[in-house]
Amino acid sequence: MAIDTVYKSITRGVAVQDEHIIKERLQNGLPLKGFWAGVETTVYYADTYAFLVNHDVSIERVAYRTKYYQFLITAILNSLGVPKSKISFVTESESFTYNPEFIKKEHQLSVLASQAGIKACGNEIDETPCFSPMLCPGRQALAEAFLGVHFQLGGEDQRGMFNFGNSVLPRLGFEQKAHLVNPLLPALSGSKMSSSKAASTKIEFLDSADDVTQKIMGCVYDESQLEGSGLLAMVQMVIIPFTRVSASLGIKRGFSCLLVNGEKKTYRLYDDFFSDCKKGRVSGDGIKAGVAEMINHILEPIRQSYASNKEWQDVTDLAYPC
Amino acid sequence: MAIDTVYKSITRGVAVQDEHIIKERLQNGLPLKGFWAGVETTVYYADTYAFLVNHDVSIERVAYRTKYYQFLITAILNSLGVPKSKISFVTESESFTYNPEFIKKEHQLSVLASQAGIKACGNEIDETPCFSPMLCPGRQALAEAFLGVHFQLGGEDQRGMFNFGNSVLPRLGFEQKAHLVNPLLPALSGSKMSSSKAASTKIEFLDSADDVTQKIMGCVYDESQLEGSGLLAMVQMVIIPFTRVSASLGIKRGFSCLLVNGEKKTYRLYDDFFSDCKKGRVSGDGIKAGVAEMINHILEPIRQSYASNKEWQDVTDLAYPC
Repeated sequence: MAIDTVYKSITRGVAVQDEHIIKERLQNGLPLKGFWAGVETTVYYADTYAFLVNHDVSIERVAYRTKYYQFLITAILNSLGVPKSKISFVTESESFTYNPEFIKKEHQLSVLASQAGIKACGNEIDETPCFSPMLCPGRQALAEAFLGVHFQLGGEDQRGMFNFGNSVLPRLGFEQKAHLVNPLLPALSGSKMSSSKAASTKIEFLDSADDVTQKIMGCVYDESQLEGSGLLAMVQMVIIPFTRVSASLGIKRGFSCLLVNGEKKTYRLYDDFFSDCKKGRVSGDGIKAGVAEMINHILEPIRQSYASNKEWQDVTDLAYPC
Repeated sequence: MAIDTVYKSITRGVAVQDEHIIKERLQNGLPLKGFWAGVETTVYYADTYAFLVNHDVSIERVAYRTKYYQFLITAILNSLGVPKSKISFVTESESFTYNPEFIKKEHQLSVLASQAGIKACGNEIDETPCFSPMLCPGRQALAEAFLGVHFQLGGEDQRGMFNFGNSVLPRLGFEQKAHLVNPLLPALSGSKMSSSKAASTKIEFLDSADDVTQKIMGCVYDESQLEGSGLLAMVQMVIIPFTRVSASLGIKRGFSCLLVNGEKKTYRLYDDFFSDCKKGRVSGDGIKAGVAEMINHILEPIRQSYASNKEWQDVTDLAYPC
């Protein structure tokens, strides 16, 4: 495959920090190892990070949540047809993070870091009076180095972390890393989707089909304000990418919407769909029905995986007790 | 020995925090293990602590300084006739501090600690913009637990650290520790003696006899302001305790001063000496001569140990290059 094609397939839909790191490896024919991408991929379960950041959750509960996410992410990857051979899984607390080499580097990094520099990494770190979250940025940066990845995928809210890592890693003898920066999905109600917001504002992986339909049919669609719409973002960032992955696996299932003229139209490109939205060719209800159908189609194999996995069900009760 | 006598010999000359911890062990006939005392004693070389606090000193230089202090402290203990069999030496970076059990407890402690609570441990932590000093209070508290000591000796400036440790250790399943709190020696010029102040304001262990004499003869002695005098503090906290230790080893050498009436008087109790100072029976020069003579007597075996130890000399050049 041409270098340009590979680069585009890795970076499609995300912003890129330090793209030269990825490009140079591709140009020199070197293997590419990332936290997440269509290359050699490492999924890193940052359970120690979770414990240090969520200082009101016990270490035992974090362990259950880690197990929960291991089941969930495996189910998601299976449902997307991602080949297991290309992925390695590393759990922070069971990895190199207790090796003396890691701890020594953590100390050296701490000496290089200022309190202000750490707090600048993000709101999660800056806004808490607790001490442990301050350990997170350094440990995340070192994880990139010890995993030996060349780039990491993370959300927009991770930019501060990524910059911090690149400011300290070279001073510790490690290479800088490139970063793929995922836009954050807006909530169905318009603002940022977050696990700390009301359940009705977001779709969860294990929501029932009825719940999904109800949440999506109940959300706001304002034809005069398409920017920032949670509904459209879901089409752009979840549904269209999903149809592209499906197509690459030989499954031809596009995103279909009922137009205001009564016809049904199937979209393979977001721009086409967005253009029709702007022209008023699709109604809010038409979009919602199409989105609900497709999201349910995407989630169904994950739900089935959960329904047939007693261990996952048990761990869910322990991880998220009512 | 009666419990009272042992307790007094352990706590002579120092303040005690949580004295019931020491007393209860003595009353129940349990062994006592401390960082420092006339019992089972552990000398803990906190080299990682030093690296984290002194963020402008390289890790290699800290290693040389650790070696330097190992030579120095051994020479001091030898010169005082302390039996080696009663002392164990532990160097932080070569100890349990890289064991996963320690690191896990460090994370749990970090979750319990607030940033403000850590900064309240002392000026060294509070006044720096650097991140690494914030790791020190937790690691020092955990070291007490992992060393299995029942009390720790430290300077007045460690009180914040001690309180912090006792506030978190029980929540991590460890026992609280007692603390012996050493008064800080004032500088010869009157204020606190510190390694960061000018050399002329303090006596260093390897100062030549001439340097010692010159520093002591040059210091201020104000008969109308005896409180806070660096010269008197040296008599109280170094010389009189030294004569007591010597006497217990069968060496009868008191602290002698020339009185203003021309006679020489030997003191075994600080109160006697202080009373004569107040009454003007001793002159400043007389005290200075007596102090200089005694300090040189104390330091001489340490100097000799240094002079005959090529390895110590070499490491000094690397630890403290001019």
